[in-house]
Amino acid sequence: MSPIRIAIVGVGKIVRDQHLPALAKNADYQLVAAASRHGTVDGIDNFKSIEAMLDAVSSIEAVSLCMPPQYRYEAARTALEAGKHVFLEKPPGATLSEVADLQALAEAKGLSLFASWHSRYAPAVEAAKAFLASTTIRNVKIIWKEDVRHWHPNQEWIWAAGGLGVFDPGINALSIITHILPRPIFITSATLEFPENRDAPIAASIAFSDAQKLDVSAEFDWRQTGKQSWDIVAETEAGEMILSEGGAKLSVNGKIAHDEPEQEYPMLYRRFAEIIKEGRSDVDLSPLRHVADAFMLGRRKFVEVFYD
Amino acid sequence: MSPIRIAIVGVGKIVRDQHLPALAKNADYQLVAAASRHGTVDGIDNFKSIEAMLDAVSSIEAVSLCMPPQYRYEAARTALEAGKHVFLEKPPGATLSEVADLQALAEAKGLSLFASWHSRYAPAVEAAKAFLASTTIRNVKIIWKEDVRHWHPNQEWIWAAGGLGVFDPGINALSIITHILPRPIFITSATLEFPENRDAPIAASIAFSDAQKLDVSAEFDWRQTGKQSWDIVAETEAGEMILSEGGAKLSVNGKIAHDEPEQEYPMLYRRFAEIIKEGRSDVDLSPLRHVADAFMLGRRKFVEVFYD
Repeated sequence: MSPIRIAIVGVGKIVRDQHLPALAKNADYQLVAAASRHGTVDGIDNFKSIEAMLDAVSSIEAVSLCMPPQYRYEAARTALEAGKHVFLEKPPGATLSEVADLQALAEAKGLSLFASWHSRYAPAVEAAKAFLASTTIRNVKIIWKEDVRHWHPNQEWIWAAGGLGVFDPGINALSIITHILPRPIFITSATLEFPENRDAPIAASIAFSDAQKLDVSAEFDWRQTGKQSWDIVAETEAGEMILSEGGAKLSVNGKIAHDEPEQEYPMLYRRFAEIIKEGRSDVDLSPLRHVADAFMLGRRKFVEVFYD
Repeated sequence: MSPIRIAIVGVGKIVRDQHLPALAKNADYQLVAAASRHGTVDGIDNFKSIEAMLDAVSSIEAVSLCMPPQYRYEAARTALEAGKHVFLEKPPGATLSEVADLQALAEAKGLSLFASWHSRYAPAVEAAKAFLASTTIRNVKIIWKEDVRHWHPNQEWIWAAGGLGVFDPGINALSIITHILPRPIFITSATLEFPENRDAPIAASIAFSDAQKLDVSAEFDWRQTGKQSWDIVAETEAGEMILSEGGAKLSVNGKIAHDEPEQEYPMLYRRFAEIIKEGRSDVDLSPLRHVADAFMLGRRKFVEVFYD
């Protein structure tokens, strides 16, 4: 099979850090063009808009959409209408309803739509899932605390309404937890902390349950300085499981059970090639649905102003 | 076919005003019991909890769940686990995820789950849908403005986090608009107004779009005194359509096109009997999904304190 002729839309930090290296190492793809208002990619044709790019380079077969979620629907619809497969960076859109609309369009056109959740491909996630399936879980705590000034410097879109705030990293935890737990969970209460000068939350505290009343909690905080935490801790009948470093490492009862190199984006692109080949889509909206549920059900609390 | 032996859970205003009269007039049902913390229904066995009721009256085949949405999941799961069909008052739950969980359970058990949207059965809704399908729509305005002090006196749950606030009536408009428009819509921006002393919004202003960039807007307000408005106005190539009084009346270019007596709850119970007979569920989450999207995407604005 000849390589998939792919283009990138929205050239920013995540594209340079992750998408370009992953594509460069994967023989299933040939990167042929990029479209971005500000960024460019060396060695290929660059355009200011997806429309200009699709007009000029008709051989494109697939696009990766990496702009902020508020602008993703338009681009995704344009690409699908033009007959291209679509890879959506996370979160897949600004609303659940617009992604549902894209799903229907991809289905009608016989194209592959991929709602990517990179953290699900973190090295120890499958091992954690297998461990949890082998025992009885007593409770689960998600602790996702990072320094937004370090990880998202000057990313204004992330603080705008629709930018999700602390749920931007938090949705990574949600994408893991919805994958590794044995039963679907749902939010029973939440508190969202909004800085007085921001339209998106800087912290969130969430309680979940499931059909068997499993106690699952999440603490998301963007004000963490010093040690950063991206941990999921499960108390089980077989002992304490810690999935740490955003899914990279697993330990059970203090013993390291899994520690391999990170391959998230390479695996995402392998998955995208696979679903294109199989002629189907992969769109699991449950992580974004939990975010929407948290905003709908959650109590709003105001906290002090926050500047980058 | 012998009548469906049904029970009511959560006996409040909507049950007395709508459910009991609708059931009394429908030979497909026999009302056999009720469970409620405070209310009772004359002439049948009454219980304090759904568990006590299901234990005592094993012949119950279906339950209508009419308590506030924050308490509906537990009751629905209890009923489905006990093998009963379930009618959910609107909104069907406090979160999208919990209703998705109930859908999966109903499916696994071969039971009927009905997410009821009474406004979809308002007299002129089908005529409005047919009119819109016959022409090209230029824009749509939803104006849903009512006096919460008159319609929801002392209903504290409606102001609690998860109580949805002005989206409690607004979701009726959303249930109509998602039924009558030719294509799915999605929210592109929203502003939610929260009284400083409340956890739920008192007003919301929402902009929607669709695959063909149709301009749809909604104004929800709970502070309306004097004339109340539950109107959907569409400018079309065939003139101006006004669906007014919550779907009860339809006029096109000022001429009354449809004006019949209201039969919403009788029609809901006919529909529930129909899906039980057909062995299937009827759960369209799109109205609640739009509410969740509005909370997730919307900008929060604080307005003056509000007391009943």
